[in-house]
Amino acid sequence: MIFRQLIDYESNTYTYLLASEVGREAIIIDPVLDQLPKYVRLLQELDLKLVIAADTHTHADHITATGNLRKEYDCAIAMGEHTKADCVTIRCKENDMLDIDGIKLHCLYTPGHTDDSYSYVLDDRVFTGDTLLIRGTGRTDFQSGDPYQQYDSIFNKLFKLPVNTKVYPAHDYNGFTSSTIMEEKQFNPRLQVKSADEYAEIMNNLNLARPKKMDIAVPANQKCGLIETRPIIK
Amino acid sequence: MIFRQLIDYESNTYTYLLASEVGREAIIIDPVLDQLPKYVRLLQELDLKLVIAADTHTHADHITATGNLRKEYDCAIAMGEHTKADCVTIRCKENDMLDIDGIKLHCLYTPGHTDDSYSYVLDDRVFTGDTLLIRGTGRTDFQSGDPYQQYDSIFNKLFKLPVNTKVYPAHDYNGFTSSTIMEEKQFNPRLQVKSADEYAEIMNNLNLARPKKMDIAVPANQKCGLIETRPIIK
Repeated sequence: MIFRQLIDYESNTYTYLLASEVGREAIIIDPVLDQLPKYVRLLQELDLKLVIAADTHTHADHITATGNLRKEYDCAIAMGEHTKADCVTIRCKENDMLDIDGIKLHCLYTPGHTDDSYSYVLDDRVFTGDTLLIRGTGRTDFQSGDPYQQYDSIFNKLFKLPVNTKVYPAHDYNGFTSSTIMEEKQFNPRLQVKSADEYAEIMNNLNLARPKKMDIAVPANQKCGLIETRPIIK
Repeated sequence: MIFRQLIDYESNTYTYLLASEVGREAIIIDPVLDQLPKYVRLLQELDLKLVIAADTHTHADHITATGNLRKEYDCAIAMGEHTKADCVTIRCKENDMLDIDGIKLHCLYTPGHTDDSYSYVLDDRVFTGDTLLIRGTGRTDFQSGDPYQQYDSIFNKLFKLPVNTKVYPAHDYNGFTSSTIMEEKQFNPRLQVKSADEYAEIMNNLNLARPKKMDIAVPANQKCGLIETRPIIK
């Protein structure tokens, strides 16, 4: 399998490219519009055919590249079934599988950061979006976020994966690129709680600033980033 | 094998942690002094014993954490034999092997960015320092850098590795985290040259600004980062 982790420094977003070495089919997870030329060049250089552009959830901090990738490659756009984006062509449900040329990604509904948050699970790794970060978790104070749902998603779904499963989140702000389920169980400071109430107490008192791009990013992402004010970059 | 890529955002440095899952012995490659507390915490959390702190070369853009890691863990400090740092305890020569609990890293002398630049080669990946970057190469205009030597290091040493070898450089400024020898052969814009002279012509005309921290970093790194003006962080 070809596997690449790519960084958008402006939003500290991690984008993942997975592809089959045989059939050359590829999926990209959480692509950022500003990085579109980089993806196009890399796909071309690696001789890959993009078949799915997926988002883990409706991002509030950056605009997705899924719509423009679809324009470029006629690929599917995948998100969880709860998304408000009509442009999504594969609406994942829990236990659905995205099969990219033998690379089997299982859809796991992990709401809490948003009500449309999904994780994508491969045999040995999981793409956790903003549900489970490295030594952190995604905020739960907007976009129908809910700390109780997030507690359930993390403790009763993600933490049920094998402990050696590698964790690849949608963001990191501290210079880590991956973790494992075992580490997050043991060392994630927000997850050393005894109850959902205790977790909600932490999450409801984070007092975080509103994301700067939220008013632009959320409506843009509900159109898969296909916003008229921005020229399509090739 | 435990493998982690860590980022220092200030200098865009990649630091690598490799460790045996059985014996828990670890090596860290190109650690950054400012990130020392992160390494100490991660090593503790992963229950690892640091046995070697290595640098690929004398860095000019950041201060190494090798000396302080040695203070903390009594580990060896490894660099190439050409280093001017007296504090180095393993002075690698070409074809020497660093064996960390079965993780065998071969030392490959790859001068050009500096005259003390080494790459460390594992079976399926190579840590190329500033010799070979992703779609770029390290500058050759100071610290006894030499574009002809770098051409030889890249074309006659690194490019002789199996084409699927993963490339993990010491820096990236464009949001890539890894590459392969095949990709760099085919798509590194500086390496589509027909001769060493042509490569030297490119490198001698980059007109790059002097690294801001060079006057501090180079002498500090010749003491393995053990500089008196800075308190040791625990």
